[in-house]
Amino acid sequence: MNPFEIDLEQNAANYTPLSPLSFLPRTAAVYPEHTAVVHGSWRTSWAQTYTRCRRLASALAARGVGAGDTVAVMAPNTPPMFEAHFGVPALGAVLNALNVRLDADTIAFILDHGEAKVLITDCEFSEVIKAALTQLGRDILVIDIDDPQAAGGGERLGEIEYEDLLAEGDADFAWKLPDDEWRAISLNYTSGTTGNPKGVVYHHRGAYLNAVGNVMTWGMTQHPIYLWTLPMFHCNGWCFPWTITAQAGTHVCLRRVEAGPIYQAIAEHKVTHLCGAPIVMQMLLGAGKNERRDIDHQVEFMTAAAPPPAAVLRAMADAGIRVTHVYGLTEVYGPAVVCAWHKEWDSLPIEEQARLKSRQGVAYVVEEGLMVADAETLEPVPKDGETMGEVFLRGNIVMKGYLKNPAATREAFAGGWFHSGDLGVWHADGYIELKDRSKDIIISGGENISSIEVEDVLYRHPAVAAAAVVAKPDDKWGETPCAFIELKADAAVEAAEIIAFCRENMARFKAPRHVVFGPLPKTSTGKIQKYVLRQRAAEG
Amino acid sequence: MNPFEIDLEQNAANYTPLSPLSFLPRTAAVYPEHTAVVHGSWRTSWAQTYTRCRRLASALAARGVGAGDTVAVMAPNTPPMFEAHFGVPALGAVLNALNVRLDADTIAFILDHGEAKVLITDCEFSEVIKAALTQLGRDILVIDIDDPQAAGGGERLGEIEYEDLLAEGDADFAWKLPDDEWRAISLNYTSGTTGNPKGVVYHHRGAYLNAVGNVMTWGMTQHPIYLWTLPMFHCNGWCFPWTITAQAGTHVCLRRVEAGPIYQAIAEHKVTHLCGAPIVMQMLLGAGKNERRDIDHQVEFMTAAAPPPAAVLRAMADAGIRVTHVYGLTEVYGPAVVCAWHKEWDSLPIEEQARLKSRQGVAYVVEEGLMVADAETLEPVPKDGETMGEVFLRGNIVMKGYLKNPAATREAFAGGWFHSGDLGVWHADGYIELKDRSKDIIISGGENISSIEVEDVLYRHPAVAAAAVVAKPDDKWGETPCAFIELKADAAVEAAEIIAFCRENMARFKAPRHVVFGPLPKTSTGKIQKYVLRQRAAEG
Repeated sequence: MNPFEIDLEQNAANYTPLSPLSFLPRTAAVYPEHTAVVHGSWRTSWAQTYTRCRRLASALAARGVGAGDTVAVMAPNTPPMFEAHFGVPALGAVLNALNVRLDADTIAFILDHGEAKVLITDCEFSEVIKAALTQLGRDILVIDIDDPQAAGGGERLGEIEYEDLLAEGDADFAWKLPDDEWRAISLNYTSGTTGNPKGVVYHHRGAYLNAVGNVMTWGMTQHPIYLWTLPMFHCNGWCFPWTITAQAGTHVCLRRVEAGPIYQAIAEHKVTHLCGAPIVMQMLLGAGKNERRDIDHQVEFMTAAAPPPAAVLRAMADAGIRVTHVYGLTEVYGPAVVCAWHKEWDSLPIEEQARLKSRQGVAYVVEEGLMVADAETLEPVPKDGETMGEVFLRGNIVMKGYLKNPAATREAFAGGWFHSGDLGVWHADGYIELKDRSKDIIISGGENISSIEVEDVLYRHPAVAAAAVVAKPDDKWGETPCAFIELKADAAVEAAEIIAFCRENMARFKAPRHVVFGPLPKTSTGKIQKYVLRQRAAEG
Repeated sequence: MNPFEIDLEQNAANYTPLSPLSFLPRTAAVYPEHTAVVHGSWRTSWAQTYTRCRRLASALAARGVGAGDTVAVMAPNTPPMFEAHFGVPALGAVLNALNVRLDADTIAFILDHGEAKVLITDCEFSEVIKAALTQLGRDILVIDIDDPQAAGGGERLGEIEYEDLLAEGDADFAWKLPDDEWRAISLNYTSGTTGNPKGVVYHHRGAYLNAVGNVMTWGMTQHPIYLWTLPMFHCNGWCFPWTITAQAGTHVCLRRVEAGPIYQAIAEHKVTHLCGAPIVMQMLLGAGKNERRDIDHQVEFMTAAAPPPAAVLRAMADAGIRVTHVYGLTEVYGPAVVCAWHKEWDSLPIEEQARLKSRQGVAYVVEEGLMVADAETLEPVPKDGETMGEVFLRGNIVMKGYLKNPAATREAFAGGWFHSGDLGVWHADGYIELKDRSKDIIISGGENISSIEVEDVLYRHPAVAAAAVVAKPDDKWGETPCAFIELKADAAVEAAEIIAFCRENMARFKAPRHVVFGPLPKTSTGKIQKYVLRQRAAEG
C-alpha cells in the first residue's frame, strides 16, 4: 500500500454525504431575507422557507413518518410541493410526486406499489384521489392542501390541512443529512411500455450533482428568478427545486401553465429562467396581444422532448428568450444531455442554427458517459450522422434503479450502461440526435404516453380485433396518439365511442385523438408495421 | 430494511468516482477547437491539450510511474505545470507542485518526505534544484522544462526535456478515472508551525467539488478566460486548473507576475477572471501609465490572505475589476469561505462596503460546515462580532490528511472539525471575520511564513539569546517578518548580519526585513508576549 492510503481515512471533518438538503440551511443563513418562494400575492423569505420545511419534517416525524417511508404528493407547482422537496427527505423519507393528470387506477397502483405512508393532496384533485384511495383499500395519512389561490371546487379528504400540519411542527427541528449519499431521496413513476408504471428511485448524491449540473450547464449566477412552468412531478422538476435553492434564487409558483400568467410573471418578477416542453413555447408565441407583456431582460428557456423548429427559435429570440435544448428521461433525473452551444454558430443562418440546435447534444458535465451504440452488443456506432443505434448513458446522475423490480433494473443497466430505449445517430462532432423511440412512447404536451398501454385498453373493447397506436404530429401538442383499428367481423363502432371508451379506462390525456379503421399493415410474420402507420398518421 | 435499500446497488451504469479528470475529455470532445492554453505566442486547443496530457501520462507510465507514485513539479505558471494537473493523476500518480521560492533544504526535505519518483523542473530553477538533488542523495527521474519563453540562464539537469518526453508518449493513452474517489490526486506542502512542512493530501472527490464550488461561487458561464496570476503551486492554484477546464475556458499562462504583462494579457485576451494575493491588486493599481491598458469589459478578481481596504476596492472598481474576497488554507483546497455579496450593499458608502467585504464570510456551497468556536471545547462562540474563537471547517473540501503524519492529522481533525488555527469572530449575520492567527503565520506577498521557522534559524546564530518574529504591516507585501532579538551578554552583531544569516539558512523571502535588538517582553511565567511585539512592529 502506498503512503497516500495509510492513516488518511474519511471522518466527520473531511467527509459529508452529498445531499441537496445542504443547500437550504446555507441559503437561509446567507440570504435570510431574500425572497424564496412567490405564489400570487403570497411570498416567503429563505429564513421562513427553511422554517416551514423544518416544521413539515418535524410534524411528519411526530405522526410516525421515518427513514425510508414514502410520502406522496399530488399538487401543482405550489409552495407545499416545493417545500416537500426539502421537508420530506430531511427526515429520511422519500418524496413521491404524483403526476396530477393521472387517473385513479394508476394513482392507486402507485400508492400501493410505492408503499406510500402519507399522501399530501391539493383539493383540486379530490375527486380522482378519493377514487384512488377507495381502490387502494388501506388507510394512509391524508393531508389536504387547501390553497386559497386555487379555483376552488374540490373537497377536503384528509385528517388535517397542510398549514395546520406545519403549525404542529417544530421550527427548530434538527436538519439532518442522510447517513449515506446513496439513500433514496425521491421516487418518480414513469409510464413504461408495459401496463404498470415503474418506480424510478433517485438518491441524494445524484440529486445534488444534477442540481450542480444545471447551474454549470446554464451558467447560472446567484439569485436566478425561476418560473415554475415545468411540473415538479416531472423528474422532481428536473432537480430545479434544489438547483435554484443552491443559488439562492427565487421560485415563482404557478398553478396553471397559461400564456397570460406566464408573461405576467416574467414581466412582474423579472423571471430569468424557466423550463418546459415545446408546447409552453408555442403557448407563449401564440398568445394574444392582451396576454403578452414586453420583456426587456434576457430570459433563458430550457426545453426538452422535441427539437425546437427554426420558426420557433426565431420567434423566441425576437421575444427576448434564449432557448437551450436538453434531453433526458426520468431515469437520469431529467436533463442529462445538452445541445452545448458554440458561439460561432450564432453567425449562421437561422435554419442552420435550428438544425444544429435540434440535436440533443452531449453529456452534462456531471454525467460521465453518453453513446449511441448497438442495442445488443453495446458497440458504439460510427459517428457518421446516419447509423442508427440506441442511446446509452452512465454516471452519477443515473437512477438507483426501479423500485421492487430487480429484473427491470438489471435489464436497464445491462452491460454497465443505462439503456434509454431511444434511438438516434451520432454526428461527427460527437453530438447525438434522436431519430425514433424504440419503446413506442408518444410525447404529447410534454407527457409520455405509452402506445402499448393505449393498445391494451383498445383490445379490451369488444369490437376491436387488432389495434396499433402511433404518434401523430400535432402543431399544439407536439404529438397526439392516433389509433389504427381492425374491427371484428360484423362489428360496428364509431370513432367517438372508441375515444370515450379509452377516456373511461385511462387518464384523459392518453386517449387517442384520432381513430382510423381498416386492416393493419403486417409483416410476413404477422408483426404490425408501425412505421407504415406513422407515415399514414403524419399524412392524414 | 426498507424497499429503497434492496436490489438498488451501485454499478457501472449509475456510479462513477468523482474526479476532475472527467472534465478534460468532455471539454476536448465538445469544444475541440476552442483555445485551451495560451503562453505568449504559443497556444493549444482543447483537443491538443487533451492529447498532450495523454502523452504525458503515457510517457510517465512507460518510465515506470504508476498508481500512488509522487510526481513533483517545480515550475511557474506554464503549460507543463497546467498539463501535470491532468496528466499525472490520469495514471493514478500524485502531483506535488513545489513552491518555486523555496530553498534547496526545504525542497530536498519535500522530495524525500513526499517520496517523489519523478521531478519535472523548469530550467530557471536549476541552481536550487541541483543543490536539492545533491542533498536528497538518491536518484530520481528528472525531466527538464526548457521553456523558450523563459529568460534563460538555467541549465538542464535531467534525462530528457519535457517536449521530448511528450513525443515518447501515446496520444491515444486510455484516460482512466481513479477506482475510488478518495484516492489522492495531489500533495501540497504547507509551512507549518514546526520546522518541517506538512504534506497536505487532496483527494479526487474534493478536487472535483472545489472546482464545481468555484464555478457556483463566481457564477461562471461557459468559456471564462482565466489569467494565471495565482501560482499553481498554491493549493493547486485554488483548483482552477480543473475549474476552468470544466467550463471549457482558456488558461492564459504567465511566467512573471508583473503589472505590464497582466494588463497586456487582460486587454489582449479579454481576460474575465484572475486570482491573487492583495499584492497583485496593489501591483495593478500602482502600475505606471505605460504599463496600463484600458479595460472595457468586466473583470472578476478573487483575492485572499488579507482583506482589501476601501481605497483599493474603489480603485479596482474604477479600473473595471470587481473583487471577491475569499478565505481558505492549503488544508481546504484553497478557497472554502467567501464573503458572499448582497446586492443591497452596492448602495452603501464605499467605506461601509469595504468593512463588509473585509470579512471572510460564509462557507462555500460545497463546504458543509464553518464555525468560530472555543479552541478546546469546540463550543461555538456567540455571533456578537466580538467574542474571539478559532475558525473550524468541515465537509468535502477538507483534505484527506497530512502525509505520513497521523499525529498531526488526528490533531487537525480532533472533534470532527478541521482546526484552522486562525482566530476570529462571528458576526450576527453569520459572516466570520479573522482577527489573528494562532499559529503565528506571517503572510508576505501571499506566501505563508512560519514565524517559528524563522525563530528556529535565529536561535542558531551564536550571538542570539532569545528571538521572536512577528508580522510587520507593509504597504507592498501586506506583511513582512520582523525579528526582535535579545543578544547574549557581551555579544555584538548588526541587523545586516542577522538578515544575511537568515537568507543563507532559509528561503530568501522568509528572512526578516527588520531586526530590533533589546530585551523581549515576557509574562510572569516567561512566555514571550508577542502581542506587545506586534504593536511595536506596527508602530515602528
